[in-house]
Amino acid sequence: MRPSALSNIIERIEVDDVRFPTSLEQHGSDAMNLDPDYSAAYLSLHCNDGSTGTGLVFTIGRGNDVQCAAIEALAPLVVGLNVDDLTADPGLLSRTLLNDSHFRWLGPEKGVIHMAIGAIVNAGWDLLARRAGLPMWKFLGAMTPTQLVACIDFRYLTDALTPDEALAIFEAAQQGKADRISELETDGYRAYTTTPGWLGYTDEQLVTLSKQAVADGFHLIKLKVGKDLSEDRRRVALARDAIGPGIELAIDANQRWDVATAIDWVNALAEFDLAWIEEPTSPDDFVAHAAIARGVSPVPVATGEHCHNRVMFKQLLQLGGAQVVQIDATRVAGINENIAILALAAKFGVRVCPHAGGVGLCEMVRHLAFFDYVAVSTSLEGRMIEWVDHLHEHFTDPATVSSGRYVAPDRPGFSAEMKPASVAQFRFPYRTTETP
Amino acid sequence: MRPSALSNIIERIEVDDVRFPTSLEQHGSDAMNLDPDYSAAYLSLHCNDGSTGTGLVFTIGRGNDVQCAAIEALAPLVVGLNVDDLTADPGLLSRTLLNDSHFRWLGPEKGVIHMAIGAIVNAGWDLLARRAGLPMWKFLGAMTPTQLVACIDFRYLTDALTPDEALAIFEAAQQGKADRISELETDGYRAYTTTPGWLGYTDEQLVTLSKQAVADGFHLIKLKVGKDLSEDRRRVALARDAIGPGIELAIDANQRWDVATAIDWVNALAEFDLAWIEEPTSPDDFVAHAAIARGVSPVPVATGEHCHNRVMFKQLLQLGGAQVVQIDATRVAGINENIAILALAAKFGVRVCPHAGGVGLCEMVRHLAFFDYVAVSTSLEGRMIEWVDHLHEHFTDPATVSSGRYVAPDRPGFSAEMKPASVAQFRFPYRTTETP
Repeated sequence: MRPSALSNIIERIEVDDVRFPTSLEQHGSDAMNLDPDYSAAYLSLHCNDGSTGTGLVFTIGRGNDVQCAAIEALAPLVVGLNVDDLTADPGLLSRTLLNDSHFRWLGPEKGVIHMAIGAIVNAGWDLLARRAGLPMWKFLGAMTPTQLVACIDFRYLTDALTPDEALAIFEAAQQGKADRISELETDGYRAYTTTPGWLGYTDEQLVTLSKQAVADGFHLIKLKVGKDLSEDRRRVALARDAIGPGIELAIDANQRWDVATAIDWVNALAEFDLAWIEEPTSPDDFVAHAAIARGVSPVPVATGEHCHNRVMFKQLLQLGGAQVVQIDATRVAGINENIAILALAAKFGVRVCPHAGGVGLCEMVRHLAFFDYVAVSTSLEGRMIEWVDHLHEHFTDPATVSSGRYVAPDRPGFSAEMKPASVAQFRFPYRTTETP
Repeated sequence: MRPSALSNIIERIEVDDVRFPTSLEQHGSDAMNLDPDYSAAYLSLHCNDGSTGTGLVFTIGRGNDVQCAAIEALAPLVVGLNVDDLTADPGLLSRTLLNDSHFRWLGPEKGVIHMAIGAIVNAGWDLLARRAGLPMWKFLGAMTPTQLVACIDFRYLTDALTPDEALAIFEAAQQGKADRISELETDGYRAYTTTPGWLGYTDEQLVTLSKQAVADGFHLIKLKVGKDLSEDRRRVALARDAIGPGIELAIDANQRWDVATAIDWVNALAEFDLAWIEEPTSPDDFVAHAAIARGVSPVPVATGEHCHNRVMFKQLLQLGGAQVVQIDATRVAGINENIAILALAAKFGVRVCPHAGGVGLCEMVRHLAFFDYVAVSTSLEGRMIEWVDHLHEHFTDPATVSSGRYVAPDRPGFSAEMKPASVAQFRFPYRTTETP
């Protein structure tokens, strides 16, 4: 073999602990997370032909080093893989990482190791899409139904979704695909904004930012709730008054309640016409979500950003625990597992409104929502992608929203890449005693 | 204040990556875990009065360094805590660690961070029991019902178990406590053995060890299954023939199947009179466990060793997914969360048969089973603790089984302490190129 035959090998993984000191400004504060420092366990795959792929895990500060250590620990499973093999088998990287029994023991399929696998899997996809010169949503959208089925690990899913059923979903979505791609390129995808509603903001900030959101063209705003009911009634009333009756208003409790409290609290706010109640209780507790959904109907229940794998989403849908599924780009085992989750949502006829914000989540998850419309659900009804206008300036292909809609990304890849200067400036531990 | 007022402070945490090269002998091999190297992320809390507490997380090899890194990352939350405060409030250490929002994001309440919290919480309990001069089961057994309630984090539990209901369970168990303690000191607690049944063993090993188990006084043996049905039928038949009809025979699939396969496979083995089917599918999937339990009845379903927190056990019981609950000493957030799980099992009237084996699991979990009989369920009916006769020689207070029964431990603490020479010999990476 000639040396050039080696040119498609992943030869190393670079990992950076990147932390933005967001707690100084109370951005991102909610009932559970009072002082987050939005962070990323950030990684690049480097091939010996010079091509690269980027991925990250979003965390909120302390422990980001543990997340980085997990990625480093998994690196030996990836270094040496041939990119042609990854291209030929879209489930290969995911399977290689998920089926290592030693690492699996540390989950299984959850927490630090699972998110590390997700970041590496996403970096692998990024590498392939860049080499193909396509933004991720188009790269995925161009795959055949059979290839998409091959992405999914059906273990533990077949009581709700078989390979044949998934294939039928993907095949049905072939029709009209080109038109939906054109539509997204022209019109983008509806966004909603959480920017007005952080708990740490003053009333004046809340009202001003709510009005601004409407002026900016958003159709829905979301408020954090769950610390104090009378405070919440006051804040939700202020927001509803600021946006008027024609704009949707969702609330987010960030896992704050038990079942009975959730039902009482949401019903005490229902007069303000709620678009959904998000994360009312433990993200693990689907029995509770189902009880809450019954208790607060017709207010829909939304959850998923902390739902740790496809098996959990499957049960959430089987039990009727959510009427809105909120996928996250870095909580599960990467694009492969998110394809499984999108297929499950389509099977159960439940709409998907992705979680975003954090570090790079808007950048990545927009590709999955666009792909879902193009090649899975083929629906936009009631669907929006979360938008938080923080930290985009650090990315080389930042998400952009115009007139309340995500603009279709057109640069190759999954958009997780940060500017080298940002990585250098915010690499932790910081080089000076002051925060950067 | 005089300097001696500082004498009860936790001043440092020491962490060791300890790995035993068990894969060389195929001990511990099952359908999912073919080559485990039984390992421990091992930690000691050191107080400045010289007292210590020990805990560990059991892992199966690769990634044990990530588990150690998680313990190190949490250490700053613990160093400086006053032991008198921990004594006064048995929920303090657990709450301090679980309520850090940054680390919580990495779970929440699952995976590497959650197990790290469990090891530290257990080390804190070990410290207190040693200072009191009591083995853990007696230390816990001596607590008042009110103190036991204070150990439990009821968040997300109240739709199934309220503080008042838990208090009633603990209060009812006060009666006859002294008699049950005496009974355990005299008779011990029934054990069952997994030693004959590892997948990597030959037929001859299987038959010889099965017969030996009966001769040793065990009332139940357990076989690993799930790789090949005809092989399993042959192996289960061999074992049943070796032990005769009077001894119980359980099978363990280690998460191998989906729902339909599980039901068919178990029913194809049911003629051999099965005591239970363990881990038939994903440990996250209670909807599936409930479907399997209906489909294989009257064979009971057992699970829990990978069930990652009290919320998951709650749903497992609410949905009827398990007739045998298998607690683990190092998967959840320590003794506090295991007290919650024991109380839940008592509330639902389901028996507990702890998972053991691994590194130190027999040593620790026996205390929880003994405590359960003394002060929670007050029942021994159908209850046994798993026994695997590996690696006990490395512990300073090894578990011992006599005539098929765990002997009551009498040394102070939670028995997680390893011999310094063992830690030194098996500390990873090994100092020579050969395994120790």
